[in-house]
Amino acid sequence: MSMLNGFSPADAERLSQQERALIERRERLLGPAYRLFYERPLHTVRGEGVWLYDEQGRRYLDAYNNVASVGHCHPRVVEAICTQAAQLNTHTRYLQQGILDYAEQLLATFPAGLERVMFTCTGSEANDLALRIARHFTGGEGVIITQFAYHGVTGDISALSPSLGAGVRLPAHARCVRAPDAYRLGTQNVAAAFAADVRAAIDDLRARGIKPAALLLDGIFASDGVFAEPCGFLAEGVALARAEGLLYIADEVQSGFARTGENMWGFQRHTVQPDIVTLGKPMGNGQPIAGVVARADLIESFGRSVRYFNTFGGNPVSCAAAKAVLEVIQEEGLQQRSAQIGDYLLQGFRRLAEHHELIGDVRGAGMFFGIELVSNRETKAPAAQATRRIVNDLREHGVLISAAGPLENILKIRPLLAFEKEHADLMLDALNQVLNANKPSHTTPVL
Amino acid sequence: MSMLNGFSPADAERLSQQERALIERRERLLGPAYRLFYERPLHTVRGEGVWLYDEQGRRYLDAYNNVASVGHCHPRVVEAICTQAAQLNTHTRYLQQGILDYAEQLLATFPAGLERVMFTCTGSEANDLALRIARHFTGGEGVIITQFAYHGVTGDISALSPSLGAGVRLPAHARCVRAPDAYRLGTQNVAAAFAADVRAAIDDLRARGIKPAALLLDGIFASDGVFAEPCGFLAEGVALARAEGLLYIADEVQSGFARTGENMWGFQRHTVQPDIVTLGKPMGNGQPIAGVVARADLIESFGRSVRYFNTFGGNPVSCAAAKAVLEVIQEEGLQQRSAQIGDYLLQGFRRLAEHHELIGDVRGAGMFFGIELVSNRETKAPAAQATRRIVNDLREHGVLISAAGPLENILKIRPLLAFEKEHADLMLDALNQVLNANKPSHTTPVL
Repeated sequence: MSMLNGFSPADAERLSQQERALIERRERLLGPAYRLFYERPLHTVRGEGVWLYDEQGRRYLDAYNNVASVGHCHPRVVEAICTQAAQLNTHTRYLQQGILDYAEQLLATFPAGLERVMFTCTGSEANDLALRIARHFTGGEGVIITQFAYHGVTGDISALSPSLGAGVRLPAHARCVRAPDAYRLGTQNVAAAFAADVRAAIDDLRARGIKPAALLLDGIFASDGVFAEPCGFLAEGVALARAEGLLYIADEVQSGFARTGENMWGFQRHTVQPDIVTLGKPMGNGQPIAGVVARADLIESFGRSVRYFNTFGGNPVSCAAAKAVLEVIQEEGLQQRSAQIGDYLLQGFRRLAEHHELIGDVRGAGMFFGIELVSNRETKAPAAQATRRIVNDLREHGVLISAAGPLENILKIRPLLAFEKEHADLMLDALNQVLNANKPSHTTPVL
Repeated sequence: MSMLNGFSPADAERLSQQERALIERRERLLGPAYRLFYERPLHTVRGEGVWLYDEQGRRYLDAYNNVASVGHCHPRVVEAICTQAAQLNTHTRYLQQGILDYAEQLLATFPAGLERVMFTCTGSEANDLALRIARHFTGGEGVIITQFAYHGVTGDISALSPSLGAGVRLPAHARCVRAPDAYRLGTQNVAAAFAADVRAAIDDLRARGIKPAALLLDGIFASDGVFAEPCGFLAEGVALARAEGLLYIADEVQSGFARTGENMWGFQRHTVQPDIVTLGKPMGNGQPIAGVVARADLIESFGRSVRYFNTFGGNPVSCAAAKAVLEVIQEEGLQQRSAQIGDYLLQGFRRLAEHHELIGDVRGAGMFFGIELVSNRETKAPAAQATRRIVNDLREHGVLISAAGPLENILKIRPLLAFEKEHADLMLDALNQVLNANKPSHTTPVL
């Protein structure tokens, strides 16, 4: 099974003997699930701010990792981890102050009505728990997702992640709707198409005797191809689903914590109110922590009748890290920076599109971008090979991004929120150079 | 829904105003799933070695927590976490040395044939992944578990954890067998009863058209009531299941990492060879890390056809913590100490049983004990109320344990592996005092 931007053994011959030995050792110990990025995998040894360093000391601008979002090894987060790890690290069956202080600060970032939080260790666990809560509350089983969704790796959640490919079968209780792709569906059509698909999915579940439980949506449709505009495109479909008794689960594992710039949470772009929100990736800047934020009545109904205890969930060290992350976002103004540098990058990418025919569409919100590459702007024929080439060439130019989408033709760009203007300029310059180098030979490079 | 050794709001009036305020705040932020231990919950603020400290500075001997197993805030583990957190913390799509060094050291502790490891963040995720691997490989769906098993909290795994109570329904593909309870079934019968139950479960699954996939067993049957003897009681049932094409998944989340003393892994007591082993709790001494160790062909078959990537799984900080834990176990001789101090405690508990009629059975292996309390040694009538009393009285005496078992009458004792003889003596003395205080009034206290 191939992976977008994945290393394949066929690439091995261009590697050094040392790199090949490391990859073979890895295969022998961890097996084939441990796929590597890039034709020439990156051997990381150090991270600092917006930079990752390889074993030769070369630095790479991190425009991809949505975990170390406030900066690799941010000193404040590191200090919070060290201090707490030396003091106490145990579970939530004892009273502790730290988890409550963090829970309060976190909940204060949500709109009214989302009033309780439960902590897990991973986004997969958060989505798995959200699904359990939704099913328990509604008594239903059916779940509506987008066609190329990714929500996690537990048994239940991987089955709701069609982007994982043919190795995972869609269960009888799942229905897929088209992602709100303004580029291919037309800006004026996405809201209505989404609502119509949700309507049809509910009807089809019911026709087969499956009671629908939830509409589960990534706040920025990352694996579907990054869709953020027009603002509000979810409103009609979500309202319809909620009116039919489904709960709306906003998967903010990718789009949360200021990633989308104008808002703290991705769903806020669409003026919709989730019943459950799931959190993960950047929450602890690498320290494993994730969670479920939800309506009080949902958490209470579940918690009173089902026993749920996550041994490491909400542990003091992970909470201390997450508290530091939230404070860094607030005190360093990273949400504003995500909006400003994000807008600067978006304009920059759009300028590049004026000169590079390969770029079919530029889109995103805050610091989350999709740049869709096509071999023909009229037919929108996907340029999957060029996409792979550009991701790998950028790595050689010292800039890390990746690719996404069902047609494998979308550059997925998620700069750390810690990006300054100078880093944005580096990113734009590198992309321009790489696009020039990949131009069809009859055109001239842009200077 | 009640919980063994759980705080209930009815207990609130004996608490200080400050404690009540903290509990109310907790309820308001986290909801009712966050249950507390003890009638008088413990407010922990610091941990060091075998001790936990409350906010008044009072210390508690930790004879319960199976996570901070090498000692709370072990300096070597803390240092490993701090050093790595300041250097690099990212995911496994890049090459890194640390994960491989740890994987190699970890796999060296397993018998031949268990040759690959995949990392997750929690034991629940590890069991969930193990189940996915087993189902993928066998093409089956059915799973055999014990009657009061606990394996985790994901949707799939909570359904295979009947000890969670009526809030979780047993699915059509699950079959329960009796745990190997020598006290109630008779020592000479457990192996045969277990094998007969496994046989019946397989037959019943097949009769209903459900292909069996796995036999999933806790290495010490912790939630069933702690069963370790006679050594070898699993061999016949496991051999039978494997001959029928089921995979044997050894859940070592509780019983792994030297907990059972004579062996590194609980299954080794029973001279059986698992196909898959799952790890968790003490693996990182509190830093979230867990994993699946399995036969190479299983990992390869799964990894080649199913995409699995766990964002925080195998991250450098968690691997550094886990590597330090394994080295502390090996260099401080904690497995030998688990065997020696464990045996000393077991003899001590047995001496107490000579004087306290309440003790119906004393059992365990290494540093994992079950002490079954009965109101009548002939009828073996469970003494659930006394069990709860003793757990709470011990907390007042400064010793932390808990309770388990379907009849709620088994003291569950898991001293940190870092216990020295003096700590074992404290434990035995406190238990003796508490048993004396709970003696029926017509008997005289033991001095």
